[in-house]
Amino acid sequence: MNSLFASLPTTVFETMSALARAHDAVNLGQGFPDDPGPLDVRQKAAEAVLNGWNQYPPMMGVPELRRAVAAHYRDWQGLDLDPEAEVMITSGATEAIAGALFSLIEPGDEVVLFQPLYDAYLPLVRRAGGVPKLVRLVPPHWRLTEEALAQAFSPRTRLVLFNNPHNPTGRVFDHEELERLARFCTRSDAVLVSDEVWEHVIFDGREHLSVLALPGMRERAVKIGSAGKIFGMTGWKVGFVCAAPALMRVLSKAHQFLTFTTPPALQHAVAYGLAKERDWFLSTRAGLQRSRDRLAAGLSSIGFNVLPSAGTYFLNVDLAPLDAALRDEAFCRTLVERFGVAAIPVSAFYAEEAIDTVIRFCFAKADSTLDRAVERLEAVS
Amino acid sequence: MNSLFASLPTTVFETMSALARAHDAVNLGQGFPDDPGPLDVRQKAAEAVLNGWNQYPPMMGVPELRRAVAAHYRDWQGLDLDPEAEVMITSGATEAIAGALFSLIEPGDEVVLFQPLYDAYLPLVRRAGGVPKLVRLVPPHWRLTEEALAQAFSPRTRLVLFNNPHNPTGRVFDHEELERLARFCTRSDAVLVSDEVWEHVIFDGREHLSVLALPGMRERAVKIGSAGKIFGMTGWKVGFVCAAPALMRVLSKAHQFLTFTTPPALQHAVAYGLAKERDWFLSTRAGLQRSRDRLAAGLSSIGFNVLPSAGTYFLNVDLAPLDAALRDEAFCRTLVERFGVAAIPVSAFYAEEAIDTVIRFCFAKADSTLDRAVERLEAVS
Ligand SMILES: CSCCC(=O)C(=O)O
Ligand SMILES: CSCCC(=O)C(=O)O
Repeated sequence: MNSLFASLPTTVFETMSALARAHDAVNLGQGFPDDPGPLDVRQKAAEAVLNGWNQYPPMMGVPELRRAVAAHYRDWQGLDLDPEAEVMITSGATEAIAGALFSLIEPGDEVVLFQPLYDAYLPLVRRAGGVPKLVRLVPPHWRLTEEALAQAFSPRTRLVLFNNPHNPTGRVFDHEELERLARFCTRSDAVLVSDEVWEHVIFDGREHLSVLALPGMRERAVKIGSAGKIFGMTGWKVGFVCAAPALMRVLSKAHQFLTFTTPPALQHAVAYGLAKERDWFLSTRAGLQRSRDRLAAGLSSIGFNVLPSAGTYFLNVDLAPLDAALRDEAFCRTLVERFGVAAIPVSAFYAEEAIDTVIRFCFAKADSTLDRAVERLEAVS
Repeated sequence: MNSLFASLPTTVFETMSALARAHDAVNLGQGFPDDPGPLDVRQKAAEAVLNGWNQYPPMMGVPELRRAVAAHYRDWQGLDLDPEAEVMITSGATEAIAGALFSLIEPGDEVVLFQPLYDAYLPLVRRAGGVPKLVRLVPPHWRLTEEALAQAFSPRTRLVLFNNPHNPTGRVFDHEELERLARFCTRSDAVLVSDEVWEHVIFDGREHLSVLALPGMRERAVKIGSAGKIFGMTGWKVGFVCAAPALMRVLSKAHQFLTFTTPPALQHAVAYGLAKERDWFLSTRAGLQRSRDRLAAGLSSIGFNVLPSAGTYFLNVDLAPLDAALRDEAFCRTLVERFGVAAIPVSAFYAEEAIDTVIRFCFAKADSTLDRAVERLEAVS
């Protein structure tokens, strides 16, 4: 058995969702919406699975979807991607991340990551043979500072695994921070793998800037996107990878042996969805922003200290002012078992020196779900 | 970049399918059926994607499907599997194989494999840190002999990656060979990972015997199955992993970080399909057997030396008697480019000392497709 995998716990998202089911709790833990997703996109998928091609699609993805991804990022990011050579479809962003790490890391390579971090990152980097170097983001601003980057980067840095908008902090990094990061990557001659699955889930009029659009990054960045997040159907598991041809050739070798292909019916439906009018994306954002504000207001009104959220489905609450005797993990366990609300302890996003007074709520829910959660939480605070 | 992945070629199946499209050839290369798959199963999927749950399903798979897999293997293999602890759903058998290798191999472990081998196996074993030991299967019988096993197994063997029915040879290993293999695994205290994706595609009244049903294997075998192959919808990418709880706990750690989950609509449709009457499976086999016989007769009639096929979608042709100046790879290239028929060179299934006079045809096609291929091939022989 592999000692690294054998010693891993079950992912916190799965554990909390299972607890939520067991305790009939309002599940604001794992990030998925209440909304069933756009009807027309589901109709396309139904039609395609019933009457379309259900055999292996091309390994890199169906041409219609690769063209749609390139067109989408031309419209939204000003990127000029060759759908043939620079776009690949994967079975979700998770596969895209795993594949990027296995194909780009040579054992012994230094890999820079940012803490707090999504729980899949570190075990995958380690299993791929990478030597992790962690940059610590510090609340309440979670900024990418020159000092923090300087401590983690070295001439041996070969890969950087980045996430923007950032889960779990809800930060959308600004132009200055991104250019700083790009400079460090260039200086170390490192490849920047950027998990941008939340690119469309940003608020207050912000615009997402992909690392691929930064000066000098076109040839050294790998952009990862997710149809599941864009359309709020997290079970679809259709991911996109965009990278220059030289990188893509290697990335595709991992994909061909990790899953090989992704169901063509879902790919066709996503191709259709990506071509939706700008307005659809903006009004989806507006809806999620309203939900964020509703949950934030509700939690504030009952005495929680709500931290800002500029993107993602998540907002965080700092327990410290509650004078909570319980650390975040125990607090979340009590919440789900005794009060019937599931959340995620932010300490689960740390490999070391975890902040343990912050918990994460998913607000991508119907008003009634959010209100019910707040009602139940009133008894806590 | 990872040197191992960077040096890999594109998988031969993808390459040949792309050539087939480019030359408008009859594609008997990559293994997928002409038939669109069972209508009722596609209807279930369409209904589920339209009106069902499209968010993350449980990481291990939807309970209905895990129960259906357990019930299916109780009926067909006499296995008593706990759907909660011993069944996991993956995004295709490819993910299941990759996950098994990454989670069960500790760098330096010896891994026994059987040549000819499916092209994903060796790069994955190497990337996981395994030290491959190849058992050579020798035509025309491709038997698992005591001598061949004895040369590859050692006290350091930790894992065995096996495939039955066997691609590309079309062999279904017999009871005696399987028990021999099981004895070697037990003696070395090795885990046996068995790719049984072709379990339902067997002919002439044969029955498939899973390694999991062999004496002493219940606790040390990992059985991998594929809905894509069972229902002839190779693009669905729904795989099953069955293993004892102690193994499953580790296997699930790879799954949670390689893809995490598999589209729930497809899972529900597969659950429905697995519960079909015995007759459905038997008549599907009978149909494929007729296709095998039709292609074999056609190829024989034009002078090809057709090797036996007891299972899988494939039959092989030995070019040697043709006195072919071309080795199999060049022969396949000529076939697709000049004669408009795509096949797979069996040398692509070798890491060393390749047999290079055998080519593989997929017969899971409509009669008219098979006949058209034979017509075109007549000009060759
Ligand atoms: C893979 S389940 C986790 C989904 C998610 O992005 C989150 O909740 O953070
Ligand atoms: C992953 S494409 C190959 C499908 C297959 O099993 C084969 O053709 O051998």
